[in-house]
Formats: sequence, C-alpha cells, structure tokens
Amino acid sequence: MTDAHSADADGEGDAEAEADADFGAVELDFGETGRIPAIAQDADTGDVLMLAYVTPEAVERTRETGLAHYYSRSREELWQKGSTSGHVQHVREVRADCDGDALLYLVEQEGGACHTGYESCFYRTLDGEVVGEKAFDPDDVYE
Amino acid sequence: MTDAHSADADGEGDAEAEADADFGAVELDFGETGRIPAIAQDADTGDVLMLAYVTPEAVERTRETGLAHYYSRSREELWQKGSTSGHVQHVREVRADCDGDALLYLVEQEGGACHTGYESCFYRTLDGEVVGEKAFDPDDVYE
Repeated sequence: MTDAHSADADGEGDAEAEADADFGAVELDFGETGRIPAIAQDADTGDVLMLAYVTPEAVERTRETGLAHYYSRSREELWQKGSTSGHVQHVREVRADCDGDALLYLVEQEGGACHTGYESCFYRTLDGEVVGEKAFDPDDVYE
Repeated sequence: MTDAHSADADGEGDAEAEADADFGAVELDFGETGRIPAIAQDADTGDVLMLAYVTPEAVERTRETGLAHYYSRSREELWQKGSTSGHVQHVREVRADCDGDALLYLVEQEGGACHTGYESCFYRTLDGEVVGEKAFDPDDVYE
C-alpha cells in the first residue's frame, strides 16, 4: 500500500500518454480528455482564486499574451479570463506539478476572480459559511 | 460572449447533475466521472501543495477523520494522503467553489506533500526552473 502519488511516481515517465505537449523543459500530460486543471493563485496574497481547465492551446495563449486563458468544457472553447468582465489575470509565473497533469498560475487579478463578485471562487466552506470577501457587484459587471 | 464562468453562473442550479452529494449546506456536483479536483493548500504559508481528485466517499472520510483523503484514478481506490509516508495532511477547513465542482483543503502538512521530496508538487516552473524547497529525501521514506 503506497500513496497513489508514489504509485504513479516518476511523473516524467508518462511521456507516451494520449496528448502530450512540450512547454519549455517540462512535459505536460493532457491525458485522454486533452485538458488538465489549472489553479489560479493570487501572486501577492497567496489566495487560491479559482480552478479551471486548460488545453495545450490555452497554455500557449497564456504564455504568448501573459493573460490567463482556459478552456470551457461546457462551451467547448478557449476563453480568456476577464474578456467580458475586464477582470483579467496577469500571469506572473506558470508552474507544473510533479506528474505534469496540473498547473498553477500565479496571477495578478484585476477586480475579482469569481462571477459571483467574490475575490475567490472558494468563498464558502463546505458548511456554507461565507469566508470570502466581495470584490465587486456582479450586477454592475454582467448584463 | 461571456466568460465561461459566468456562462454556467448560479452554481447552485446544477442540482440535477449525474452525481450530487450534500455536505453541510453546499451541494457538490461530482458530474459524470463521480469525482472532482481538490486542491491542498498549506493553511499557514498559503503554498499550494498538490492537486488530487475526490469522490463523495473521500470527502466523507476527510470530514470524519480530519485527515485528507483522495481518490486514486490509476488505482481506482480511496487513499489517505500519507498512509505510507507518514506525511499526512490535517485538514483545518474544506471550501467549495462557486459551482460546487472543485474543493480547497486548507491543511497542516506533515513532512512534504510531494513524493519527490519537495514541500509542494508545484516545485517547477513550466520552463523547468526549480522554485520549490525540499522537505525530505524520498529514499528515506519510500522503499
């Protein structure tokens, strides 16, 4: 009995997976779905702002523009965070995890990350207690 | 053109999804796969330590024991982080995101979170620069 994490140990060995992509020195494993989760973290406060999914194209666009791009599973398309709201994320650094199947975007967030108006999408505990701060009024931002 | 996040807005409305589960006041949407990503964040330093997946059972066990549990996709089973290595995560708080399809575990990490010996699995930039700190020597922990 080992931890799952040690079981699929040596991440770099997953090179033969379905969808791989080379970005700089780290090989990413996009697996069968062609997308992996990306966590956006406020580079200054350390707050975890949101989790969304990225395709190789989304990562490429993020690196080219310096603005966080993700892939919408419901709309099946690339999107730039803040394209309507103006609440863009300036990406200071992108980190990969040990297995290359998750990313961490260190960002400077304009406005708030969450469409509900909170700074972070993780504004509630599982018990429903609100622990986050409001950054804006969504009625002013979305029509 | 709206953000994907505003497109599937009012998270609580996804109640009719394939696999739902009630934990306290927040309804989680485990979707077709029956699992959602959970981010472990160091409750003191704010460092993002790892990303893994959870099933309703994993969340239940986490709440019952106060120790982080996840679901291993490769081994298709529930696992407790640190069950072999001793590097358990004491969960101080669990937060849900706006759509109820991602969790944030605020944890006190014993040892290091990553099987490579680093404090965090996100110890490298996409360019391969090592930015993380070593917490232990994996040869001493895993046989």
